[in-house]
Amino acid sequence: MENKLVFAKEIIKEAGAFIKKSLSKTITVEEKSAFDDLVTNIDKETQDLLVARIKSAFPTDNILAEENDMVHNIKDGNVWVLDPIDGTVNFIVQQDNFCVMIAYYEKGQGKFGLIYNVMADQLFYGGGQFDVYCNDKLLSPYKRRPLDRCLVGSNAAMYAKNYHGIKGFIDKTLGVRVYGGAGLSMSKVLSGQILAYFSVIYPWDYAAASIMGKKLDYQLETITGELLDYSSRQAVMLVPKDRLEEIRDILNSEN
Amino acid sequence: MENKLVFAKEIIKEAGAFIKKSLSKTITVEEKSAFDDLVTNIDKETQDLLVARIKSAFPTDNILAEENDMVHNIKDGNVWVLDPIDGTVNFIVQQDNFCVMIAYYEKGQGKFGLIYNVMADQLFYGGGQFDVYCNDKLLSPYKRRPLDRCLVGSNAAMYAKNYHGIKGFIDKTLGVRVYGGAGLSMSKVLSGQILAYFSVIYPWDYAAASIMGKKLDYQLETITGELLDYSSRQAVMLVPKDRLEEIRDILNSEN
Repeated sequence: MENKLVFAKEIIKEAGAFIKKSLSKTITVEEKSAFDDLVTNIDKETQDLLVARIKSAFPTDNILAEENDMVHNIKDGNVWVLDPIDGTVNFIVQQDNFCVMIAYYEKGQGKFGLIYNVMADQLFYGGGQFDVYCNDKLLSPYKRRPLDRCLVGSNAAMYAKNYHGIKGFIDKTLGVRVYGGAGLSMSKVLSGQILAYFSVIYPWDYAAASIMGKKLDYQLETITGELLDYSSRQAVMLVPKDRLEEIRDILNSEN
Repeated sequence: MENKLVFAKEIIKEAGAFIKKSLSKTITVEEKSAFDDLVTNIDKETQDLLVARIKSAFPTDNILAEENDMVHNIKDGNVWVLDPIDGTVNFIVQQDNFCVMIAYYEKGQGKFGLIYNVMADQLFYGGGQFDVYCNDKLLSPYKRRPLDRCLVGSNAAMYAKNYHGIKGFIDKTLGVRVYGGAGLSMSKVLSGQILAYFSVIYPWDYAAASIMGKKLDYQLETITGELLDYSSRQAVMLVPKDRLEEIRDILNSEN
């Protein structure tokens, strides 16, 4: 497993370097489901690069990925879950604040995850049998602080609408932060900068953070308490395990 | 004037180094007007350091600053406007994503402004007779892009409440970002990462960005179109001058 993690660290850095180099070129933007659901040629080319590396090194492994409808059942064999650019809108508009994400599963068990914040050159990796690091820094498990001394990350629309009581919950804290990417936001949960994160996202958006989060005493589940299905888009939250009941209770009472 | 700008760059870096060193010590947090309106001993000590440096170098200059009720009429003589730590909540909770800000006025005319993102070591400076830089990089004036290819920064509560049509306006763009600090957010306007910024803030929160923004073809005014008063807390927006009428029209129609 250690070799596979070393390999994943290599290819995620290679993907990051490829994206960085692309910033000086013309980027082609396409709309997917709506004017604000965007994809670029760089998203696709980065995924192609990752897929080619994985298929060459581990020909019988499977891939579940954001672009090109690469679907695979998470419980079936060895599965690499890939998000070539998470925070595509930030990538297009800001040329900053986006991540590459890789997660690796065997028979549905998360073995390790990686989130690479390309422009900040911050690589979060670990989970499963491995400790979780940000670059060379070992990350500590969740440490409890009073709710009114914490910040929370959220999808902006869910916050504004008080979706399932999210705004009511956040209003009991020091406030909301909206960073525009699941990878970026959840890496800030892992490093203790925000307490929790709420959004409506796909498996490739949450897989890596789910595996690393588990190792650091966080839990990722749907906002209404169901398990993740690793296929559809779901409303999820990443929260400290220790506060799961408390947060569920507040969400229910604020809903 | 050039000597004064060189001096301002020196003391803002010194303030940043002082704050960075303080992160390893115990920080004392006090509530001001509410549980989420916080100040630390480091805010106060950093301001004391800046004030001492200015008073020693320019004994007859005046100071308008966030802490310790240092009030002065912006139109009266030479005035330094100081925010020792902008984004105090981020400073306390994240130990990151906060800025030191300095602006310098003579008889009410903005001569230069500085925003220093301490942990990222990014210094924005210039305005008045000076070009605007981020570290060694010359910043370009505002470049027009379609509204539905832009992001907007906002105070979260104003966005959620659709205060004066802000949410209606932002919903015509790629979305909102909430970074938790006026300095951090407005520096992202200056560098073109977000189109505009909306918040309810004090003179020390907007003075530096106002001066640098003017040089880059942005305008800072209240959301309802009044001039800034440089004394009270006002609901303000920093927007491209070129789009001021268009944004005002959208805010009015979405209000």
